[in-house]
Amino acid sequence: MGLIGITIGDVAGIGAEIIVRAWSDIVDEFGNCAVVFGHPEILRRAIKLLKLDLEVVTVDKICNIFSDITNAVFYKKQIPCISCSDDSVLQVLPASIDKRAGEAAFRAINFAIEAALSGEIDAVVTAPIHKGSLNLAGYNYPGHTEIFAQRCGVNDYAMMLYLPAGKGIYSTDGLAVVHVTLHTAMRNIFEQITIDSVFSKIKLADEFMTRLTNRRPVIGVCSLNPHAGEGGLFGDEEKTKISPAIELSRRNGINVCDVSPADTIMIDARNGKYDAVVAMFHDQGHIALKLLDMHRAVNVTLGLPIIRTSVAHGTAFDKAWQGQAETGSMLESFRTAKKLVENKYKKN
Amino acid sequence: MGLIGITIGDVAGIGAEIIVRAWSDIVDEFGNCAVVFGHPEILRRAIKLLKLDLEVVTVDKICNIFSDITNAVFYKKQIPCISCSDDSVLQVLPASIDKRAGEAAFRAINFAIEAALSGEIDAVVTAPIHKGSLNLAGYNYPGHTEIFAQRCGVNDYAMMLYLPAGKGIYSTDGLAVVHVTLHTAMRNIFEQITIDSVFSKIKLADEFMTRLTNRRPVIGVCSLNPHAGEGGLFGDEEKTKISPAIELSRRNGINVCDVSPADTIMIDARNGKYDAVVAMFHDQGHIALKLLDMHRAVNVTLGLPIIRTSVAHGTAFDKAWQGQAETGSMLESFRTAKKLVENKYKKN
Repeated sequence: MGLIGITIGDVAGIGAEIIVRAWSDIVDEFGNCAVVFGHPEILRRAIKLLKLDLEVVTVDKICNIFSDITNAVFYKKQIPCISCSDDSVLQVLPASIDKRAGEAAFRAINFAIEAALSGEIDAVVTAPIHKGSLNLAGYNYPGHTEIFAQRCGVNDYAMMLYLPAGKGIYSTDGLAVVHVTLHTAMRNIFEQITIDSVFSKIKLADEFMTRLTNRRPVIGVCSLNPHAGEGGLFGDEEKTKISPAIELSRRNGINVCDVSPADTIMIDARNGKYDAVVAMFHDQGHIALKLLDMHRAVNVTLGLPIIRTSVAHGTAFDKAWQGQAETGSMLESFRTAKKLVENKYKKN
Repeated sequence: MGLIGITIGDVAGIGAEIIVRAWSDIVDEFGNCAVVFGHPEILRRAIKLLKLDLEVVTVDKICNIFSDITNAVFYKKQIPCISCSDDSVLQVLPASIDKRAGEAAFRAINFAIEAALSGEIDAVVTAPIHKGSLNLAGYNYPGHTEIFAQRCGVNDYAMMLYLPAGKGIYSTDGLAVVHVTLHTAMRNIFEQITIDSVFSKIKLADEFMTRLTNRRPVIGVCSLNPHAGEGGLFGDEEKTKISPAIELSRRNGINVCDVSPADTIMIDARNGKYDAVVAMFHDQGHIALKLLDMHRAVNVTLGLPIIRTSVAHGTAFDKAWQGQAETGSMLESFRTAKKLVENKYKKN
C-alpha cells in the first residue's frame, strides 16, 4: 500500500548519496514501496562511491516497476528509477552551481508532482535542490515549496518543520513547528503577526498533527516578547494578537494552551507537553529545532492536494560526493510521508 | 585562599535548601571557604528537611569564623552563618510573598556586599530572591543586579549568563552568553541595537572570558535577522550595525568571528567553536541556554568592583521546602566565583 516517489535533488549535492544510503533501511522497514525520479547513472555513481550492494533499474513507466525488476527477493537490492533528464547532467561537477543540474532537478520534481497528481504515486519525498542552479536554468523559485504550490495550483500553503519522536524529543508523536513569520526582516514581523495569521498557523499545526496521529493534538503558542510580555511591560502583542487567536482556535475545537514564553515552551515541548508549537519568528523555531536534533528534522508542505515531505537540510556542497552525508533526515522524511499515506488510506 | 559569601535569598523559596544540599560538595571540592549570610534557623530547617548531617554555627564577625567553629576536621559538617535579620523571618510560610522575607533577603544581600567591598570576603554568590516580597518590604529593585550596582556605586554594568563546560557544552571553558537587548518589547530592540551597544557587549564578553580562562577567548555574534539578513534581503542591521561593531572590536584586539545566523551560532557554540556568544535579543540566548542545560547556568554581574555570581533560576515556589530543589546552578555559581577569585589572585 502506497508507492512513494523520491526526487534526486541537485546532482552536485548530497541527494543521490542520501537516497542510496537510506535505501536498505527504507526497504527493511517498509518493503517495496519507493521509486526514484532522477538520472539512474547519478544513483549508480553514488552506489559506487559508497560501495553499496545495490543495483539501479531504469523503468519507463511507474506501472511497469514491478515487472521491470527481476523478482521480489532481490528487490531490496534494486532501486527502480524513472529517468527524468538527458545525459548532459552527467557532466555536472560535484559541489558546483550548474544550470544543467538545475534543469535536471526541476524536471525530476515535475515528473514526481505529475505522478502524484495522477495518483500513480501516493507521496513525494524530495532531496535538496540548489536555488542558484535552479535560477541559472531559468526557474525563479525560492525553493521546492513554491514549485509544488504552483504546479498543484494552490495559493494557501505553508511549510512546517517536523521532528519525529526519538533522540531529543520525548513526546510520543514528535514535534511539529510552524512559524507565523519566517523569511523576513525582524522589523517587518510585527505587521505580519495578526489574529488571522496566528489563527491560521494554529489551525495548520492542528490539522497536520491530527492527520499524523489520528488524535487531537496539544498545541503550544510562543509569545513574541520576552516573558510573554511580562504583563504588558515588554509589549502587548500577546494580549492584542496572540491570545485572541488562541481564543478563536478554542472556539474551533482546537486544544491549544495559553501563550507562553518561547524559552519555556521549547523545554516543555522537548519534554512532551506539546505535539506542535507555533513560533512567531524564524529564530524561535530554528534555534530550538537545531539544538534538539536538526539531523532528523523533516520539512512538510501543508495545503497541497498531494503529500510532500522533504529533508530539512540543503545540498551540503561542503560534504557532497565525499561519502559523508547523513541519512537521518531522508529516512525520517520517508517515514513521515509513509505515515501520512497510511492514515489517508485508513480514513478513506 | 578566598572566602566566599553565599546569601540565603528569599526564605520562602528554595535558597536555604540548595545551600545546605550543595554544602558538602563545595567543601569537598574547595575546603573551608564559604560563609552564609542569612538567618541560621532557616538553614537548620533546611538541614532537618533534607536529613543532612550538618550543623549551623552562628558567627558574629567574619574574622571570627575560624575561631568559632570547633575544629577544622569537623568544619565540613559545620556551616558558618552570619545572622543578618531578626526572628520575624521565621514566621514566613513556604512559597509565600511576604515583606518579612523581602526585608531579610535585602539585609543579607547588603551584609554580603559590605563584606565584599571591605575585603572581608572575596566574592558573593546569591540564592534567588522574590521581587514581590522585596517590593512589599519597600525595596523597588527589578532584581539582585540593580541592588549590587547601586550599593557599589556603578552605572555601567551588565548581566551575563554562563554555562560551564560539561553536559551539553563541548567547549573547554564553557559558554558565556551576553544579550545586547534583554527585558524589552521586541518592537523596541531596533533602536537599542547600535554599533556602540553591540561593541560594548562584545567587549564585556571578551573581558569576562579572559578573566575566567586567562587566555583570549573566541567570540561569536548572532545576527538579528534570519540567515544573517540573506545578503540584505531580510534586513540590513547586520551590515549597518553588527558588522561595524565587529570591525571595531577587532581593531581593539578582540578575537571575534563574522556575524552569523543565531541558529547556526548556537550549534557551533555547543560544539565548542566559541567561548562566548553575543545575542541580539532575549529569546536567541534563552532558548539555547535552556535547551543546552539551564539547570547548570550561572548568572554573572559584570562591571562591579566585586565578584558576584548567582544561580540562574528563581525562588521556585512550586518546589520550595519540599526537598526537591536541584543544586546544579548553586554549585556552578560557586565554582565560577571561585575561579574568578583565583584568577584575580594569580594576576595580582
